[in-house]
Amino acid sequence: MPPTSIGIGLIGQKFMGRAHSNAWSQAPKFFDLKVGTRLAVVSARDATELAAFAKRFGWEKSTTRWQSLAKNPAVHLVDIGTPNNMHAEQALTMLAAGKHVACEKPLARTLAEARVMRDAAETAGKRVKTFVWHNYRRAPAIGLAWHLLREGKLGRIFHVRARYLQSWGAASTPMSWRYDASKAGSGAHGDLNAHLVDLTRFLMGEPIVDVHGAVTPTFILSRRSATGKGKEKCDVDDAALFLATFAGGATASFEATRLAEGHLNDNTIEINGEAGSLRWSLEDMNVLEWCDASDSPRLRGWRKIMATSAGNHPYAANWWPDGHITGYEHGFTNMAADVLRVLSGEKPELPLPDFADAYETCRVLEAALLSAKHRCAISLSDVL
Amino acid sequence: MPPTSIGIGLIGQKFMGRAHSNAWSQAPKFFDLKVGTRLAVVSARDATELAAFAKRFGWEKSTTRWQSLAKNPAVHLVDIGTPNNMHAEQALTMLAAGKHVACEKPLARTLAEARVMRDAAETAGKRVKTFVWHNYRRAPAIGLAWHLLREGKLGRIFHVRARYLQSWGAASTPMSWRYDASKAGSGAHGDLNAHLVDLTRFLMGEPIVDVHGAVTPTFILSRRSATGKGKEKCDVDDAALFLATFAGGATASFEATRLAEGHLNDNTIEINGEAGSLRWSLEDMNVLEWCDASDSPRLRGWRKIMATSAGNHPYAANWWPDGHITGYEHGFTNMAADVLRVLSGEKPELPLPDFADAYETCRVLEAALLSAKHRCAISLSDVL
Amino acid sequence: MPPTSIGIGLIGQKFMGRAHSNAWSQAPKFFDLKVGTRLAVVSARDATELAAFAKRFGWEKSTTRWQSLAKNPAVHLVDIGTPNNMHAEQALTMLAAGKHVACEKPLARTLAEARVMRDAAETAGKRVKTFVWHNYRRAPAIGLAWHLLREGKLGRIFHVRARYLQSWGAASTPMSWRYDASKAGSGAHGDLNAHLVDLTRFLMGEPIVDVHGAVTPTFILSRRSATGKGKEKCDVDDAALFLATFAGGATASFEATRLAEGHLNDNTIEINGEAGSLRWSLEDMNVLEWCDASDSPRLRGWRKIMATSAGNHPYAANWWPDGHITGYEHGFTNMAADVLRVLSGEKPELPLPDFADAYETCRVLEAALLSAKHRCAISLSDVL
Amino acid sequence: MPPTSIGIGLIGQKFMGRAHSNAWSQAPKFFDLKVGTRLAVVSARDATELAAFAKRFGWEKSTTRWQSLAKNPAVHLVDIGTPNNMHAEQALTMLAAGKHVACEKPLARTLAEARVMRDAAETAGKRVKTFVWHNYRRAPAIGLAWHLLREGKLGRIFHVRARYLQSWGAASTPMSWRYDASKAGSGAHGDLNAHLVDLTRFLMGEPIVDVHGAVTPTFILSRRSATGKGKEKCDVDDAALFLATFAGGATASFEATRLAEGHLNDNTIEINGEAGSLRWSLEDMNVLEWCDASDSPRLRGWRKIMATSAGNHPYAANWWPDGHITGYEHGFTNMAADVLRVLSGEKPELPLPDFADAYETCRVLEAALLSAKHRCAISLSDVL
Repeated sequence: MPPTSIGIGLIGQKFMGRAHSNAWSQAPKFFDLKVGTRLAVVSARDATELAAFAKRFGWEKSTTRWQSLAKNPAVHLVDIGTPNNMHAEQALTMLAAGKHVACEKPLARTLAEARVMRDAAETAGKRVKTFVWHNYRRAPAIGLAWHLLREGKLGRIFHVRARYLQSWGAASTPMSWRYDASKAGSGAHGDLNAHLVDLTRFLMGEPIVDVHGAVTPTFILSRRSATGKGKEKCDVDDAALFLATFAGGATASFEATRLAEGHLNDNTIEINGEAGSLRWSLEDMNVLEWCDASDSPRLRGWRKIMATSAGNHPYAANWWPDGHITGYEHGFTNMAADVLRVLSGEKPELPLPDFADAYETCRVLEAALLSAKHRCAISLSDVL
Repeated sequence: MPPTSIGIGLIGQKFMGRAHSNAWSQAPKFFDLKVGTRLAVVSARDATELAAFAKRFGWEKSTTRWQSLAKNPAVHLVDIGTPNNMHAEQALTMLAAGKHVACEKPLARTLAEARVMRDAAETAGKRVKTFVWHNYRRAPAIGLAWHLLREGKLGRIFHVRARYLQSWGAASTPMSWRYDASKAGSGAHGDLNAHLVDLTRFLMGEPIVDVHGAVTPTFILSRRSATGKGKEKCDVDDAALFLATFAGGATASFEATRLAEGHLNDNTIEINGEAGSLRWSLEDMNVLEWCDASDSPRLRGWRKIMATSAGNHPYAANWWPDGHITGYEHGFTNMAADVLRVLSGEKPELPLPDFADAYETCRVLEAALLSAKHRCAISLSDVL
Repeated sequence: MPPTSIGIGLIGQKFMGRAHSNAWSQAPKFFDLKVGTRLAVVSARDATELAAFAKRFGWEKSTTRWQSLAKNPAVHLVDIGTPNNMHAEQALTMLAAGKHVACEKPLARTLAEARVMRDAAETAGKRVKTFVWHNYRRAPAIGLAWHLLREGKLGRIFHVRARYLQSWGAASTPMSWRYDASKAGSGAHGDLNAHLVDLTRFLMGEPIVDVHGAVTPTFILSRRSATGKGKEKCDVDDAALFLATFAGGATASFEATRLAEGHLNDNTIEINGEAGSLRWSLEDMNVLEWCDASDSPRLRGWRKIMATSAGNHPYAANWWPDGHITGYEHGFTNMAADVLRVLSGEKPELPLPDFADAYETCRVLEAALLSAKHRCAISLSDVL
Repeated sequence: MPPTSIGIGLIGQKFMGRAHSNAWSQAPKFFDLKVGTRLAVVSARDATELAAFAKRFGWEKSTTRWQSLAKNPAVHLVDIGTPNNMHAEQALTMLAAGKHVACEKPLARTLAEARVMRDAAETAGKRVKTFVWHNYRRAPAIGLAWHLLREGKLGRIFHVRARYLQSWGAASTPMSWRYDASKAGSGAHGDLNAHLVDLTRFLMGEPIVDVHGAVTPTFILSRRSATGKGKEKCDVDDAALFLATFAGGATASFEATRLAEGHLNDNTIEINGEAGSLRWSLEDMNVLEWCDASDSPRLRGWRKIMATSAGNHPYAANWWPDGHITGYEHGFTNMAADVLRVLSGEKPELPLPDFADAYETCRVLEAALLSAKHRCAISLSDVL
């Protein structure tokens, strides 16, 4: 029997800590759920900030020892919002303790780490659920795209075009864990291509089978230390591009970068099929554009659909009237609601990625790295 | 001495009840405020829904008798989120009881009602604060526009162009209080032009002095009853257009409608000055477009500025990193934070409209109605 | 029997002289016409420029005496591309001589002048044809809009929204005939609103019956002389706004200005009907946007149609493959082709405005001026 | 001494024949050139259409034997507008006869052919000029981009993103020479990537040094014959994607396809540098977008510059006032004017590609084909 209230234990109090705290708090207000939530405990390293953070977002308790969550009976699900180098250890600990785990993306620094996490999830058994915070799946416009593809509205797919362009990585930006391979694993590739690979796999519903080539340059080789003293070496990619093919034959191009001036958070995906095309962009995330090839050429064109209509678009009924847009944080809230649905035996509005699924995304990311390194095409069947 | 926690009493549990409940709940999480909040009591007519609503949004108590809020010592501020015909009575009652009042827009059904409310606010004295929920003032992009105008970035203003286009008012839409003049006062005019007049007055910082002409048609004369039986007469405008002049000589055109297919919630404002132009649209509300006439013609053009940058754009530091957009509800939360700042003796991020200010907006709306009725220009000095 | 070749006599060698010369030269290359053209003679005041102009564009002869065209048997059609103060005299002279006349817009400086021209056209009889260069009617995307309206694709029309925004009229722009009421008649009103009124009347196919209000400010009262010595007074409007109603009840708003920084040549028209909406903008003139209300709300949105498809869009077959855009000058060429079709007994692709039709446009412009002057609504039945 | 009039001999009367005929006819009307033009002779295979074509566009003579142009003393420049398989033979013949040659793009079907053409041009000596119709270089907005890059407005370049998306290649489109490798050489690759590689090389002013991977799928394997009887095999790529690096280290991604529903003629290029970004799209070709990283983050954003301003933007002074757009055909006319300038000893407005330059473009295209075939990265130094 599912519990009547899910106890959440969160690790992390930075960007993701805030986003997840908000999601767990908002979900019960805007969704009709069969299960309650309890913000049981939040854990983070910096004790000086932690008490205020916990109070602000309504966490009952706080601790600087994340390990303590494993034995806390009030915690049913551990939510991991830490840097990438902590994901594997924390997830393995919590899975071993029988906790459900919701982990931030990318799942891990390396494919090897991801594989261990996937295996641990499998070992933990069916009663223990895993989730990965690929939050953009839950933008209503992406949900609409997912449904249209399943309805065959695009027919045979020819092309997938995915790019995630940001611009915060200029030479003037100081060092952080995101530029340190030992902590982040990779740079734009793991951070941004992870989103693109997850989203396109989710939308297409079929695997990527081939990577045709890749390039992962580091343009800024060192940065001033965040402490203000001296410079530190950067050893992650600033950008990562690769070409691939999906199982059904569609070509796919991926580009992630932190050096595209003019783009703040531009996650843009387009899919071209014989029966039509779709495109979506995070910076105007409430809109899905659709071109229907069954329209007469006389009246054919990209339709700009605002995916804000209750009853017509996923999650829209939980928020505001037509045309009253939701934003970045709502992807997390919509996902928290779906996680709670799954934990109470209901179906989520849209499929959720678990560790096994996120491992498949990591395989594609790894194939791209191998392709860049060896300057050759890589078949996904060779990447396990 | 200001209280350490502001007790809120809300009236209303529909669209605005949800938006305001969310705002009061979110403001303390995302803003550093000197004062706490207490969601003391919510009041609404429909008792069957009320208990669940109160629980969902964390209201301590609920009541079907709104009048009881006047005597409730736990309530410092009464938030009025009811249909327009209730505003005056509720506000007058609460002001007389010494409560701060935050009232939904439009302030009242008629200018006469608005005048009584303004006078009551004045009578209540300086210790009692009034606020009107002109929430769009607090979109970060509008805040940026306000600052640019104050910095003289547009120079002498020639034109203001404001329109609020929606499309939910087709003949198939059933009867509601919004089509009944006895409850709503007017149709698109009071609902949508109220936003436009407030926003343009706020941005311009000067009064409208003349209305040159107006037209306020009712296209759909009756609608099927919401009960399903028979038809009911509609006696409000479906659209309202008028031309005006600001004190400094700028022309202004206003258009509000519920019958503009293709527009869901399209509140668009543009201002043209000798030194540049600005424009903003609610459906892509995080963006402010600016054209700087001091740029060389060779490089001049509309700049699409995403007003999401911490330290650079109002309210942005309270939310997410650059390019991670906020939405409709955040205008209310940003306003709730500013109301709480004012009540704790701090300055708001941007000026807040009180009853006296909203009365000036009502005067302009009234001048437009008179112009339409009498088929002539109306000087604002004749509307008191 | 129509002539096998139409002899053209052009008056004017400036902006319009170039545009018209190009149109007469290009039309026979891109259209299959039953009649040839002969660029018989061009007339203009400035003899020093004229010979080179005539040679460049292939005019057989040139003359500084425009009156001589009236008696020139090689001239069948006189094309008037002069400032507005010359239109009436030149047109009357040519009509009296039995020449077809194609006159630049606006038809005349004043309604009185326009009336005389209309009457002269009527007196000249059916054998003599008149045309007015409302060139934007012949943008392919406008042609598509015209057809969609005739097919009932928009149903009952609620709103027409038309604005023509330019920015070349800053205080630094020197004096020219366009700022002198004795030559131009009016400013932005006759220059730009003339386009808007013609286009909306053309698209709607019904008269404007009421003007509700208008404002026609002059912001820049004097300008430096083009000769460089001293300043000269400007006595035309810099902007002109008015509200109107079409016979079927649709509201219409018009705005023309030369002081809208950021807009170079922004002639934008939108029409909202119960069955859908259309919009078009000259700066991206190959696109027609259409929102079809019969689409499900789930998939409804503005479609961006590129009106460049041979067989699907007016005039497109005469130019380039799909997606290869045409520009400003093509409206004139398309119109020249339609004029030549009419003169050889064929039907034009789209209806052409004659003096009687342009007179109706002038009546609306006059009603707006009267409304601004008398600060009241004006019924078109009172303007003759 | 240069001739006072350049005699043109054109081969081809289809799409390119029309575009080039128009260009030679229009250039002297809109440009002040030191040399005249004479449309001496047009050659094409289909005699039944040829006489009418020649008359329509003003060609003095016509012939079905293109070889005769080599010996025609009235012909100074031979303009080759034929399918790709004819380019080499025709160009070699004309170069050997001492004629200037302007050849359509792509220069040749294969790199081997292109090399022979380049060598023949070199052999012909400096008195004989060669040109390749990479017409998009001469869109005014591209010219502006070229200048901004030369002025260092983008600083160090990180990324080039180029794609040319069309949609006319659906399975229902019948067979043509464009789907036959023996005539076209390749499909979308030679047709569309040829434009992209030329444009990005032109803008960047540096060579591509590496191709990292490529994929060139054929999705539609056979098509119905244009004769209506049976099906024919298609052996060219429907799409071609590749990744590359410029000499300065910038990554570049290229995608060309005829199967991107929703895109008619979408040639879009974006360049990101440390000091700013640029982007341009052919479907709205008068606009250049620029983001200047030296603008404060508060006011930074993409500027939409209409490159139509006389004195500020290349070629703009030759056409119409600001905001009056030019279209597809003007690229050819602007190029014809520049060719005539070069032939009369003047400098072109912007650099023109000759056979040696177009050969470098062909090398990049060849490297991409080799990369796709061998499934590995290809260094350009290995492709000669």
